[in-house]
Amino acid sequence: MEKIADNRCFGGQQQRYRHRSEVLDCDMTFAIFLPPQAEQGPVPVLYWLSGLTCTDENFVQKAGAQRVAAELGLAIVAPDTSPRGEGVPDDPEGAYDFGLGAGFYVNATESPWSSHYRMEDYIRHELPTQVAEAFPVDSTRCGIFGHSMGGHGALTLALKNPATFQSVSAFAPIVAPTQCPWGEKALSRYLGENREHWRAYDSCELIKTVDDLPAAILVDQGQDDQFLEAQLKPELLVEACRQRGAKLDLRMQPGYDHSYFFIATFMDEHLRFHAKQLAR
Amino acid sequence: MEKIADNRCFGGQQQRYRHRSEVLDCDMTFAIFLPPQAEQGPVPVLYWLSGLTCTDENFVQKAGAQRVAAELGLAIVAPDTSPRGEGVPDDPEGAYDFGLGAGFYVNATESPWSSHYRMEDYIRHELPTQVAEAFPVDSTRCGIFGHSMGGHGALTLALKNPATFQSVSAFAPIVAPTQCPWGEKALSRYLGENREHWRAYDSCELIKTVDDLPAAILVDQGQDDQFLEAQLKPELLVEACRQRGAKLDLRMQPGYDHSYFFIATFMDEHLRFHAKQLAR
Repeated sequence: MEKIADNRCFGGQQQRYRHRSEVLDCDMTFAIFLPPQAEQGPVPVLYWLSGLTCTDENFVQKAGAQRVAAELGLAIVAPDTSPRGEGVPDDPEGAYDFGLGAGFYVNATESPWSSHYRMEDYIRHELPTQVAEAFPVDSTRCGIFGHSMGGHGALTLALKNPATFQSVSAFAPIVAPTQCPWGEKALSRYLGENREHWRAYDSCELIKTVDDLPAAILVDQGQDDQFLEAQLKPELLVEACRQRGAKLDLRMQPGYDHSYFFIATFMDEHLRFHAKQLAR
Repeated sequence: MEKIADNRCFGGQQQRYRHRSEVLDCDMTFAIFLPPQAEQGPVPVLYWLSGLTCTDENFVQKAGAQRVAAELGLAIVAPDTSPRGEGVPDDPEGAYDFGLGAGFYVNATESPWSSHYRMEDYIRHELPTQVAEAFPVDSTRCGIFGHSMGGHGALTLALKNPATFQSVSAFAPIVAPTQCPWGEKALSRYLGENREHWRAYDSCELIKTVDDLPAAILVDQGQDDQFLEAQLKPELLVEACRQRGAKLDLRMQPGYDHSYFFIATFMDEHLRFHAKQLAR
């Protein structure tokens, strides 16, 4: 693991690393914010999953999360959104919503994607293992959150791995990729045309079937989000949670769009939500 | 004036505009944050001047200023750092520290720069005039601040135009461009080799000679800033303020570098400083 950036920020350290991922069969970069409290001992850690086209850098530069993370004593890890580098296949037409920058946090089963595009295993196991070895984080207090495609990733990973991720929230998540164009495009290529195989990556399907539900789910959604009706469909999450009796706090935010200006506005409250969930 | 972006952020609006600058003889973009209070009537306005290589976007995306600006009811205007567009001459070798992205907030007198590079007049007159006409800002309560080259711009503009800019602060400013490589390169080309002409753009020289001093000057400077000794030299500002009896609060911040992670950390306190100076 090679440190490639290190900046003091709000009394903590905002760092960036390059490391080898065996799961993805490529080198990856990720960012980590270590709050001042990490100098005294292990701190709870949150994983932030970004949306389409992002790298590890967007969240670090634009979300304004470090101030409250430093106050609450939370580490935040921001991974990249897909495998990277020469030899990693991309969408033949370079589309923004498939391939590089668009890993959708799944383990691909279809050729040529299956050899690198295993973001689910990277996020749920390989990266947390390496982070726990290298940094003063308490992996028994670990949360996950994200935006759009990353909101989908956070919800599905938390639902499928409740022992690993004990708190979960999302900004404008894709809640039902089996029922929207972004999801149908990505899942059909990564997983093949059999829609039965897609259900393991659909939050609304998982909520109906998993054994252990999160104690609470916080979701913020901009009402002026340009992707609200065609891609995000929060009403499907509301209905799934209602059927199962899952505790969802969906906050529709008037005037807000899909941008990091929306994310930054409500970041403070998401961090406090996770800190409370992970407190003990 | 054409609106090219508009995002809700912390209850206000983060907007971006393209407009014609007669002074610079080109089209320019600038950003403005309008806090929620601007819906009720005119609000105080701050001008943020960015450093080398920046556009109007860096501050907006990275400084995390909107939260406290929304709380305090401050508008913030972020201009570009030089004239732009085809026909605007650039450094022949494309250097990062001269020409495009490096206007140094001066009125150039030397050919070929003098026809476009008139950032002093743009910031002190043309842009504030257009902003006052188009937005609900109270121009009688106006402050200025900036980073590095923009800290130099903020200090010199405030010292020379105390009626226009009634509060001033800076992050890691170039306080004496007549005595550092960045400044000597830029001023010799924009203003010619006669160093007497440079003094009107040197904060340390101006502090000794202007009639009206700012009521207070707030400066934050990272102690691990890679440009501290060669380019920034805050000790020269300390000495100039001591000689003149000017009120300077220079805060040396251990561990911080020259980046926006440093700026974001102390942004909150700068905004509160300006709000207090502009209160009445």
